[in-house]
Amino acid sequence: MEDRIRIRQLAEHAGSDVVLCGWVRQRRSSGSKLHFMQIDDGTGRVQVVVKKGNVPDEQLEAAGKVPFESTVIIRGSVKEDARQLGGIEVAATEFQVLSAAVGEFPIGKKEHGVGFLMDNRHLWLRSRRPQAALRIRAEVIRACREHLDGRGFTNVDAPIFNSSAAEGTATLFPVEYFGETIYLSQTGQLHMEAAAQALGDVYCFGPTFRAEKSKTRRHLTEFWMLEPEMAFADLNEAMDVMESMIGSVVERTLTNCRPELDALERDIAKLEACMPPYPRISYSDALERLKGTDAEIPWGEDFGAPQEDAVSAGFDKPILVHRFPTAIKAFYMKPDPDQPEVVLGCDMIAPEGYGEIIGGGERASDLAYLEHKIAEEGLPKEAYEWYLDLRRYGANPTAGFGMGLERVVAWMGDLGHVREAAPFARTMSRTFP
Amino acid sequence: MEDRIRIRQLAEHAGSDVVLCGWVRQRRSSGSKLHFMQIDDGTGRVQVVVKKGNVPDEQLEAAGKVPFESTVIIRGSVKEDARQLGGIEVAATEFQVLSAAVGEFPIGKKEHGVGFLMDNRHLWLRSRRPQAALRIRAEVIRACREHLDGRGFTNVDAPIFNSSAAEGTATLFPVEYFGETIYLSQTGQLHMEAAAQALGDVYCFGPTFRAEKSKTRRHLTEFWMLEPEMAFADLNEAMDVMESMIGSVVERTLTNCRPELDALERDIAKLEACMPPYPRISYSDALERLKGTDAEIPWGEDFGAPQEDAVSAGFDKPILVHRFPTAIKAFYMKPDPDQPEVVLGCDMIAPEGYGEIIGGGERASDLAYLEHKIAEEGLPKEAYEWYLDLRRYGANPTAGFGMGLERVVAWMGDLGHVREAAPFARTMSRTFP
Repeated sequence: MEDRIRIRQLAEHAGSDVVLCGWVRQRRSSGSKLHFMQIDDGTGRVQVVVKKGNVPDEQLEAAGKVPFESTVIIRGSVKEDARQLGGIEVAATEFQVLSAAVGEFPIGKKEHGVGFLMDNRHLWLRSRRPQAALRIRAEVIRACREHLDGRGFTNVDAPIFNSSAAEGTATLFPVEYFGETIYLSQTGQLHMEAAAQALGDVYCFGPTFRAEKSKTRRHLTEFWMLEPEMAFADLNEAMDVMESMIGSVVERTLTNCRPELDALERDIAKLEACMPPYPRISYSDALERLKGTDAEIPWGEDFGAPQEDAVSAGFDKPILVHRFPTAIKAFYMKPDPDQPEVVLGCDMIAPEGYGEIIGGGERASDLAYLEHKIAEEGLPKEAYEWYLDLRRYGANPTAGFGMGLERVVAWMGDLGHVREAAPFARTMSRTFP
Repeated sequence: MEDRIRIRQLAEHAGSDVVLCGWVRQRRSSGSKLHFMQIDDGTGRVQVVVKKGNVPDEQLEAAGKVPFESTVIIRGSVKEDARQLGGIEVAATEFQVLSAAVGEFPIGKKEHGVGFLMDNRHLWLRSRRPQAALRIRAEVIRACREHLDGRGFTNVDAPIFNSSAAEGTATLFPVEYFGETIYLSQTGQLHMEAAAQALGDVYCFGPTFRAEKSKTRRHLTEFWMLEPEMAFADLNEAMDVMESMIGSVVERTLTNCRPELDALERDIAKLEACMPPYPRISYSDALERLKGTDAEIPWGEDFGAPQEDAVSAGFDKPILVHRFPTAIKAFYMKPDPDQPEVVLGCDMIAPEGYGEIIGGGERASDLAYLEHKIAEEGLPKEAYEWYLDLRRYGANPTAGFGMGLERVVAWMGDLGHVREAAPFARTMSRTFP
């Protein structure tokens, strides 16, 4: 189909004759002599007019009864028409059915349950909403990568297979590996710390896996995570990168995905309000804000969704909450030298109830401290020897963070649930199609 | 370290005073009053001169005995010096040891075995060769993504978790998934075909997993694969995209990674010879070329490494071998209408013995043909119902391919073995660190 024009590019061909291919998404007939149809080729949608006299009669007849989701090849002239989608319309001079759909397309105009739609995800993808969500996802990925690449970061992929289950196997998926049991990675952080000692500023961006028994609108068992890590950088620099990168994501989504945001009926103003700088508040300050609310917790307890939602509800943009209690955070986080009861970590919480989208901070660089923590938490030291090597040979302040892609995409598109932010979402009960 | 200058950017600061951080990679002393050291911060390397009188005496003394791979903070003035690495040198006015290495760095100047180096991959990464290989890898990833993004492709990530083991479990890794057994994906192709019907031109780019008991220099159990898929496209268009994309990879590697290619002592001329167009020869023509050689095979047998090497040895650039026998190829490949004993598939074989780097072609679009093949090969039809839906509702010529990232990177850098093309390579016997 080398001479076909993609629908995205049709406007460039106004006044010309073109060939286009696509699926019949909608049809409206005015008697038997005039058919209007919406053709989608994946790059966009256009109205095609098939009219008696313009095409042979048998083609006119075919156009009047072609089932939805059949593929068609259309030759016609591109006309500017401000009333139409994309400002253009195609008057067909030839209408060929390439492959007629076999029976009725399972996804119709009526309301379907989520289970049915997810069972038919391979077909549901063709609907406007998934199309828009996935285009936004692709834009978010590009925005993140180009932002980091432009700042000199090197993309280094973390391994998925890991023989050590250093932090315990509770949330790890076991894999049968040539007769042994190994585990799927749930973070690339430790490997990125090693890579940062070799390449300075690095990031990995790939799927990660968590065997959490969570059935919430924020959880998938398989999700993509972006994990930048910087040698010779502290918490403030990590927060600066989080902020500028998310700022770039918001800006590019608004600039490059306006039709998709409109298709999703996303409130644009709420997204426009999300340009940096973002408020930076400490965990202790956040707790003050929770006092007297249903989400109030005593100092020392971790945030859950109610706390994230309640704290972020006071702001119309993402917020950075830093310096959580040392006792509730991972052993590798660096205690604040000025107040060792808190660590130099930071979460970014999205507005509109989308919760934590980033977690990170400065890593403990002191060998003795890490050895002490590993012993204190009863972790298997031998599994961490390689990680401790990074402190034996040239320790330095290293900082980084992990961004959950699906959560950011769900927020951008106001999708409500992360399962719509993944092409083929995996949850506790779904690994198909 | 907000005011530090990254070594990559030092040349922009010639004549200025700067702060830089990094690891001590080499040191050479001229008596006790003058020390030359190579400092690397991951972004580059520079020679720093620590001289009596320029720094306090205790700092001079520290510089004379600081162990390799210690981290240091240096204040000094940037001087242009054409004899030095990068054309610059830093004259230290302050020399602080941030963290002295504990004992001798495991990787020294002497030759180490590969096993030892892979056991210490987290430290080996700091050596010039892995640094260069990983920077090339990052450039190849960017080149591929930007090439496809620039042509209107949408990045759609394929799922890793799959409950169906449609083509048999022989080379699949089983995962224990909340009490059930599922499998890790070894290709995103089928899902990309569904995505192409929704978004036109798409690609996935992520890790894939194959439980092959292959211990060769071309095999990893975990490797990254780029899989573009195009609706309304035939074999020729797929070959065009393969060719232009690999052409872009070669060009960008040559343009943007010259220091890395030099560090790897890569023969630049051989890479420069690899610009498109690439020869396109049929399987049958390739067999003619093998006649009388050790690699000769009868018509109908599949290529192995000996055939790939022998055929490609006649060319100084990648070649496209198309139209392999139908009987040896996957059921979903489209038979050539002019000669159904071959399929409209194509492999790209890299020069210099790097073997198959791409495999792909046009997919069978006929529902009855696919149903027949699935029955003929004894595959479980129910596992393919969703895939067959793509032919029931708007079949069309769809074409695509899969590119093995590590093989392309190994070829670009002439690395000899794919394990050097991955940050933390996984093989049958290695899943650590």
